[in-house]
Amino acid sequence: MVGKQGRSMPTIYDVARECGVAPSTVSRALSRPGRVSARTSERIHEVAARMGYQPNPLAKYLPTGRTETVVLIVSDIANPVYSPMIRGAEQAAAQAGYTLVLSDIDESPDRERDVMQKLLRTVDGFALATSRLSDAAIRTIARQRPMVTMNRVTQQVPSVVPDNDQGMRAAATHLADLGHGRVTYISGPATSWANVVRWRALRAVGEQLGMKIRRIGPYAPTVAGGWAAAADLLKPAPRTRTGRGSAGPAAGRTATATTAVIAYNDLLAIGAMQGLSDLGLSVPGDISIVGCDNILGADWCTPPLTTLAAPLRELGATGIRNLLAMIKGAQPRSRRPVVLPSQLIVRESTAPPRA
Amino acid sequence: MVGKQGRSMPTIYDVARECGVAPSTVSRALSRPGRVSARTSERIHEVAARMGYQPNPLAKYLPTGRTETVVLIVSDIANPVYSPMIRGAEQAAAQAGYTLVLSDIDESPDRERDVMQKLLRTVDGFALATSRLSDAAIRTIARQRPMVTMNRVTQQVPSVVPDNDQGMRAAATHLADLGHGRVTYISGPATSWANVVRWRALRAVGEQLGMKIRRIGPYAPTVAGGWAAAADLLKPAPRTRTGRGSAGPAAGRTATATTAVIAYNDLLAIGAMQGLSDLGLSVPGDISIVGCDNILGADWCTPPLTTLAAPLRELGATGIRNLLAMIKGAQPRSRRPVVLPSQLIVRESTAPPRA
Repeated sequence: MVGKQGRSMPTIYDVARECGVAPSTVSRALSRPGRVSARTSERIHEVAARMGYQPNPLAKYLPTGRTETVVLIVSDIANPVYSPMIRGAEQAAAQAGYTLVLSDIDESPDRERDVMQKLLRTVDGFALATSRLSDAAIRTIARQRPMVTMNRVTQQVPSVVPDNDQGMRAAATHLADLGHGRVTYISGPATSWANVVRWRALRAVGEQLGMKIRRIGPYAPTVAGGWAAAADLLKPAPRTRTGRGSAGPAAGRTATATTAVIAYNDLLAIGAMQGLSDLGLSVPGDISIVGCDNILGADWCTPPLTTLAAPLRELGATGIRNLLAMIKGAQPRSRRPVVLPSQLIVRESTAPPRA
Repeated sequence: MVGKQGRSMPTIYDVARECGVAPSTVSRALSRPGRVSARTSERIHEVAARMGYQPNPLAKYLPTGRTETVVLIVSDIANPVYSPMIRGAEQAAAQAGYTLVLSDIDESPDRERDVMQKLLRTVDGFALATSRLSDAAIRTIARQRPMVTMNRVTQQVPSVVPDNDQGMRAAATHLADLGHGRVTYISGPATSWANVVRWRALRAVGEQLGMKIRRIGPYAPTVAGGWAAAADLLKPAPRTRTGRGSAGPAAGRTATATTAVIAYNDLLAIGAMQGLSDLGLSVPGDISIVGCDNILGADWCTPPLTTLAAPLRELGATGIRNLLAMIKGAQPRSRRPVVLPSQLIVRESTAPPRA
């Protein structure tokens, strides 16, 4: 049967053959009433309906070159930080009748560039979630197609970001209120804009609060990265020999100069908690830990993680809504990023330092 | 400047106007060398290059109606079970030069039907990950477009599934070896094919092993669903009054008839562990718990979860590879599902029952 498995849906040529007329006659009959005799038109409509002919929806996109499709590029689909962003983006696109194409670049700038080159002419716009490209590479694409970036600010490209300044201020103030004076920042990927901004904000607010702030890393923004950070966390300070030997948990405890940690993201924070526990230290007994993002699972790790919650779903939805407005011709009122509020969620991974 | 923001990339009409020739002449010059005089052709190529004209890639799809795009529909993007499936699917599509469109239906069969109707003519095929539609609805779409289902078997539609029979056998045998004789299955959505199959497989193997198997539910396949299941888990068996009163942890402990639980998925299992802990019971001390899927976070909950790991990434990749083969005209050799092996990962949420 024709049409089975969709591999041979009837075309305008099939309808023309069945009616014994030219394809152009079928086209006129179906698209411009009155230009074909009523009798012929009626017959063509009848045959088209019987054969299950449907106009090729691609045809309508040809005059403008628009596809009503936008692409969202994420740096790592396995990171649960993206699930709410994708849902927000997907729903905003669907509400506007647009289709969202998702692309996962597995933390590779090369793959990100390839995907964008390939899709350049077949999508109406690009949304980059936590892009790993250079500012220059992002601007090059943005000159050719409407684009928004999420979680990142690039000169001349509209963006939507969480309020990292206010967030880092809340996290550092929380730790200072608990009595912590030495905080280590566990750094994420060097190519991450958010990583740079969070570190700068933390250093600035730490100075105001009279805290000692240091940074270690960069690390992969994964649980494995957190384990590596945990081991490094104890390294820089000189080890103190005790009667029980230098390698035991007590040595680790006395050697650490930092009493609190803020990690670039929750996966790093969770990995660091696991790694510290493996080294014989306790969280928050020996070290308090704060994450960023509030991913699914941040409240079921041990202990439940204190973290800076970004409005992830709103980031995705706002980014796509702004992108669609640009596609329809809107000029951004200003080139300043849209900033959405963050919120510190205090759970059990932070406590006063040991006396 | 023309071309800025991509809203007015030059078309064939712009090139024609600039050259003072008909658009059809430009088309011939660019697509069929030799049909236009060498001098005119050279001029057209030069102008097209200077104006930054690129052929509209949509045009090449028109004759066949193919878009080199396939869609993957997931029931809930917030469930981490989909991340590895999406990555596998995305990579298989990219390797073949296809674009993967992702659609999230938020557990709604209505939304799933809408998405499929909307995309019916603009994608080359459908992959359904854990569809929430009826078999009849799935078959209706499958008659119009190539389709594969993942995590679900529907008569006449090719599918890729984990080995639920072997998996449930491994889980039940593990519990029997530990000495458990009473197992409760926490049921997921009633519309989930995997849920029905897992329950049937567990009941069959439990009978062979001489275990008492019961089922509670259905529950939403989320952490919140697991909390609800934990409360229900203790309800059916009559409560035993003790000297310390009926509502305390001791009463709960003595009242439960089940010593082990297998949950439809890891989110339900993790929620149930949290709920049981909240009710004063310990896992695995009072009740052993087994999940399904081995999602990110299954090893950082408390205690780390024993779970049946499905080959999620391979499910996604194999599903898309089979779909692309169908799009290119391959006939499935058989209508039987492709079955990929599952693996029981034993962690700390299972232990022998209290004597």
